[in-house]
Amino acid sequence: METHRKEREARPTTAVGTPDGTDAQAHGAERDQPPSTSAAHRGRWDREALETVLRRRFFFAPAFEIYGGVAGLYDYGPPGCAMKNNLVQMWRQHFVLEEGMLELDGPALTPDPVLRTSGHVDKFQDWMVRDTETAACYRADHLLRDALQARLDDPTLSAARSSAERQDMERTLAHVDELTADELAAALRRFDVRAPDTNNPVSAPYSFNLMFQTQIGPTGTIPAYLRPETAQGMFVNFRRLLDYVGGRMPFACAQIGLAYRNEISPRAGLLRVREFMQAEIEHFVHPERKAHPRFHRVADDVLVLFPRDRQSAPPDSERHRVVRMRAGEAVAAAVIDNQTLAYFMARTQSFAYSIGLRPEHLRFRQHLANEMAHYARDCWDLEVETSYGWIECVGLADRACYDLKAHSEVSKVELVALDKYDEPRTVQVFEAVPVKRVIGQRFKRDARRLIELLQTRLDEVAKLRLHEALQTRGSHELDGFTITPDMVEFQRVSRTVHSETYYPSVIEPSFGIGRLLYCVLEHAFYVRAGDDEARAVLRLMPAMAPLKCAVLPLSKNEVFDPLLQRVSTALTRAAISFRADDSNASIGKRYARADELGIPFGITIDFDSVSDATVTVRERDSMQQLRGDIDAVVQAIADMCRGEAHWKSVSEERERYGLQRFEGQQTTHG
Amino acid sequence: METHRKEREARPTTAVGTPDGTDAQAHGAERDQPPSTSAAHRGRWDREALETVLRRRFFFAPAFEIYGGVAGLYDYGPPGCAMKNNLVQMWRQHFVLEEGMLELDGPALTPDPVLRTSGHVDKFQDWMVRDTETAACYRADHLLRDALQARLDDPTLSAARSSAERQDMERTLAHVDELTADELAAALRRFDVRAPDTNNPVSAPYSFNLMFQTQIGPTGTIPAYLRPETAQGMFVNFRRLLDYVGGRMPFACAQIGLAYRNEISPRAGLLRVREFMQAEIEHFVHPERKAHPRFHRVADDVLVLFPRDRQSAPPDSERHRVVRMRAGEAVAAAVIDNQTLAYFMARTQSFAYSIGLRPEHLRFRQHLANEMAHYARDCWDLEVETSYGWIECVGLADRACYDLKAHSEVSKVELVALDKYDEPRTVQVFEAVPVKRVIGQRFKRDARRLIELLQTRLDEVAKLRLHEALQTRGSHELDGFTITPDMVEFQRVSRTVHSETYYPSVIEPSFGIGRLLYCVLEHAFYVRAGDDEARAVLRLMPAMAPLKCAVLPLSKNEVFDPLLQRVSTALTRAAISFRADDSNASIGKRYARADELGIPFGITIDFDSVSDATVTVRERDSMQQLRGDIDAVVQAIADMCRGEAHWKSVSEERERYGLQRFEGQQTTHG
Repeated sequence: METHRKEREARPTTAVGTPDGTDAQAHGAERDQPPSTSAAHRGRWDREALETVLRRRFFFAPAFEIYGGVAGLYDYGPPGCAMKNNLVQMWRQHFVLEEGMLELDGPALTPDPVLRTSGHVDKFQDWMVRDTETAACYRADHLLRDALQARLDDPTLSAARSSAERQDMERTLAHVDELTADELAAALRRFDVRAPDTNNPVSAPYSFNLMFQTQIGPTGTIPAYLRPETAQGMFVNFRRLLDYVGGRMPFACAQIGLAYRNEISPRAGLLRVREFMQAEIEHFVHPERKAHPRFHRVADDVLVLFPRDRQSAPPDSERHRVVRMRAGEAVAAAVIDNQTLAYFMARTQSFAYSIGLRPEHLRFRQHLANEMAHYARDCWDLEVETSYGWIECVGLADRACYDLKAHSEVSKVELVALDKYDEPRTVQVFEAVPVKRVIGQRFKRDARRLIELLQTRLDEVAKLRLHEALQTRGSHELDGFTITPDMVEFQRVSRTVHSETYYPSVIEPSFGIGRLLYCVLEHAFYVRAGDDEARAVLRLMPAMAPLKCAVLPLSKNEVFDPLLQRVSTALTRAAISFRADDSNASIGKRYARADELGIPFGITIDFDSVSDATVTVRERDSMQQLRGDIDAVVQAIADMCRGEAHWKSVSEERERYGLQRFEGQQTTHG
Repeated sequence: METHRKEREARPTTAVGTPDGTDAQAHGAERDQPPSTSAAHRGRWDREALETVLRRRFFFAPAFEIYGGVAGLYDYGPPGCAMKNNLVQMWRQHFVLEEGMLELDGPALTPDPVLRTSGHVDKFQDWMVRDTETAACYRADHLLRDALQARLDDPTLSAARSSAERQDMERTLAHVDELTADELAAALRRFDVRAPDTNNPVSAPYSFNLMFQTQIGPTGTIPAYLRPETAQGMFVNFRRLLDYVGGRMPFACAQIGLAYRNEISPRAGLLRVREFMQAEIEHFVHPERKAHPRFHRVADDVLVLFPRDRQSAPPDSERHRVVRMRAGEAVAAAVIDNQTLAYFMARTQSFAYSIGLRPEHLRFRQHLANEMAHYARDCWDLEVETSYGWIECVGLADRACYDLKAHSEVSKVELVALDKYDEPRTVQVFEAVPVKRVIGQRFKRDARRLIELLQTRLDEVAKLRLHEALQTRGSHELDGFTITPDMVEFQRVSRTVHSETYYPSVIEPSFGIGRLLYCVLEHAFYVRAGDDEARAVLRLMPAMAPLKCAVLPLSKNEVFDPLLQRVSTALTRAAISFRADDSNASIGKRYARADELGIPFGITIDFDSVSDATVTVRERDSMQQLRGDIDAVVQAIADMCRGEAHWKSVSEERERYGLQRFEGQQTTHG
């Protein structure tokens, strides 16, 4: 189960502010998969070699393969599963515990009304076309993009093409993510795009909802979906959560859980799958007070930003590139909208570093205006550069008050917070006073209902609207009543208020766990020359490594058993996960096996160990070794796994640890 | 998402050995919910008071409540979510890490063929009836049980009833879990059971599959289900897992994940829900070598057993009760089938103790013969006594070779292990040698296919069956061929073999995480007299508690802020989760709030703290306090949270910790 194109931003596109209200967000998402996995990327990361290791060592593999498999569903094998658990634990430590967040855990099965209100039922969709003869399905935008790219890449076709036609192709290709259904249809016709497998014509684009549908209960009367994001579960629980924190704003809630999208054509391994794990945070805050109390701690963190205006600059220009800025500066210069959003960006960046993503391949890309929902204030994606190009792994969005307002309106449960003023305030309010006599005469028995409506159920905006309508048109329809100017008197009055209720704004950092995991693996992978063959190594942080230590007796000999037992006991007591490998393979081969799994440390038990109870510890990347007694070695490993020391610091302070340099024979095989 | 009636044993009932092949397992499952939540239980555990606390403090609550909710779906709020994470972490430590198991993490979305092979598509069902007028649905067995119980409980009705009728009712009630569809139908007719809401007649029982169905992909061509158990994901990965351990048998794999069942009428809170978390282990072992290498470590553990023969003894007899036996004895006396099964039972029992379940309310109940699948060797449930009666929380089954064999047959991928002999062995094999000349004349072009079939595709059993058929009936049909005695010569030959392949047996411990969590809460709950009112307390183990420490400044006064900061920093550094409560409520009220959340320790900062930087630590259940400087207090708490010390040991060794007894003023409010 894992990551995803739009893991961070599953909101449907009802609310997207493109002129025609179509699928700008979903298209925008495609940015993370540029058509070219360019030669530069392929050179930097050898994806094929990596994938061979990941499959062979069962980090993950296609699920249900003995039955032919299902695209977009993966099993995490033991090392992948351990790494995923590590990643989730580190995320929980970094965000939930260190930030004092609440954590919620709700069901993936979600009844229709929740996802109808959020807009997913009506609008969470892709555009598809069908082969008019075989009925095979294709994503319309993918089909168009691939066809145009292929034609532009083909030199013979290029030669025969007019420059106007070529320009049309290039322009269309550049904007393929932003096309409406009509524009897609027109482009497919104009370029005569056909089904690639059969060369048959394709149908007009039609919509396909990406949620998995099912029914709850024996009579099938409760239509439900597998949630396409975890966020909604936190919104619908807002009142309980606010109650849990005793009404104190602001506060944040996190949820780590599975989400599902019925992708039309899943691909790119863990990057686009149908079942994936999200870790989402909803930080609820007063819409006008988005300063963050701990912002000073991150204000000097340098963020790598790719703001909107720089993305829009011509691709070859000096401006079209990232800018490094302190978080504090970025807020002061209004590059990032507010402190809370910038705070989470800085925390996200430090999290990315802590799991082993390489700083030089990270950037925050701001959403273009047409990528954002109309209600959103500001959105940034943490993008990670891999062999697939820049991959969106975390989305950080200021979603204003949209979500809580929408659920309040439909559910009739007010998801609001209360702000008690320190001092009472005097405010000007606009009042609509019913003229009871006139209303009584006109509406008789219904009069009371209208009076109550005017007195209690109109908010400021509704009153202003009523006032304007009566002045300009002389009457106004409201809840079945025709109201005329003689029924209402309007006045502005001063009021002393002690508090206000408001819909909180939501700042939402949303992490794709599987995507992050895959990116960590790409950044960690390298190949080094060995004695007989090149050897794959995963340079994983100790905290992320699936196992922390390999334990290797020099050979399969009973003489080593008692020591193996002692080392195992010491490691278990120190809560260091390990794998004893007492197979007959050479020490070098066994080191190589451990390197492939990203195991950072290896303890070797040799014949000297038997006499003096010392062992060696070897570090994966430097291949250096230190020697000392079992407790000293285990202590050093424990410190390094907890991040309290590094190999370099342990080597330098080896005397304090009771360790010595070691250049023994097994080193040469390592 | 959580626990479940059959969390541990989701296998369908195709394979169940009841005479008519019907749903004995599903019925058997009902045992955990006796019709009576008897007065005795209600007295022991005050479920209503507990549920009030659990809801008010948001341990869990019905999901999607602002939209009216959906039965059987729950949200875990912050304390419930933290406890669930603790439970999962402890489980992983106790089983995966300490036992050196593999861990797998596969998707919940499962394509049809996998669950067809396992039998779930055809047979994972409940019997339902419909109100013949309103079409409302009921579970047939529940309806019958509730109706009979109500009539037996009603004294006026009882008086008017013949003793034969009464006996019929009692007998039927006692066996309601074991009735076939026909018997259910007959009983509903015989007792004239009607729809409880309308008193209308009900339809004949019909089957309802409990899996949630959906489709994968845009054309809906891949029917799929949400898995009803996590086990199948491990079976279909057997080859990869065996490869991962280098072919070494035996080995175990665990999976912690969500499973789903479309319950007809979910109820009983977390005990029967539609989305729940399982933690399952599949231990793969040679069918004839089920000794366990670490059995000696548990051989003296005393298990509380309720074996089959004792369950069958008359309910009032001396024999009808549990027996305490050492694990070693139980295997020696063949009460438990084998060491591996007994090993996991002992490990399960120690796990249950470690999470805070109370030994006096635990027992292992053996499955009756008609509860087990025909292929199963032996099955035991860990049952936990609660206000609902005895609840099945863990199932431990020796499932023989059934699962791997079934998937091998359908997928055509052999899920077998290889046993290499230390010494070559001579074995007698039965051979069927085709008489090529005769076959060639008879079948011409098809002859080759039959020859190959005889030479390579018949196993020992098939050969014996063919031999017998030819001897007794003179011919045998095989794959479309009519074989006669002149075509095959049979012979017994000696062969030297170096290895054998075999289908491993599976020993399966299967845990319902939500059920365990709920039982822990019931066992931890008590009420104690307070100054002004009775106060609810959750006596949770520190390791299970949602938070480990409350930090309470005596009052909301800035003078305490620097110390609050110092205590927070010290706790964070020691990785102790805490909650600072600097509200204006009295210390006593704030202790009470912490007690309700099961927080084991409270640090109080008072005016003396300001002058000498000492603080008090208060223990939840004894309400005793100790005082010392911040580091000493944090060190003691850290030791107790890690299970390395208890309040009693810390109190006794208080001088070593640098602590003193404290009877200060805030104690009286605690």
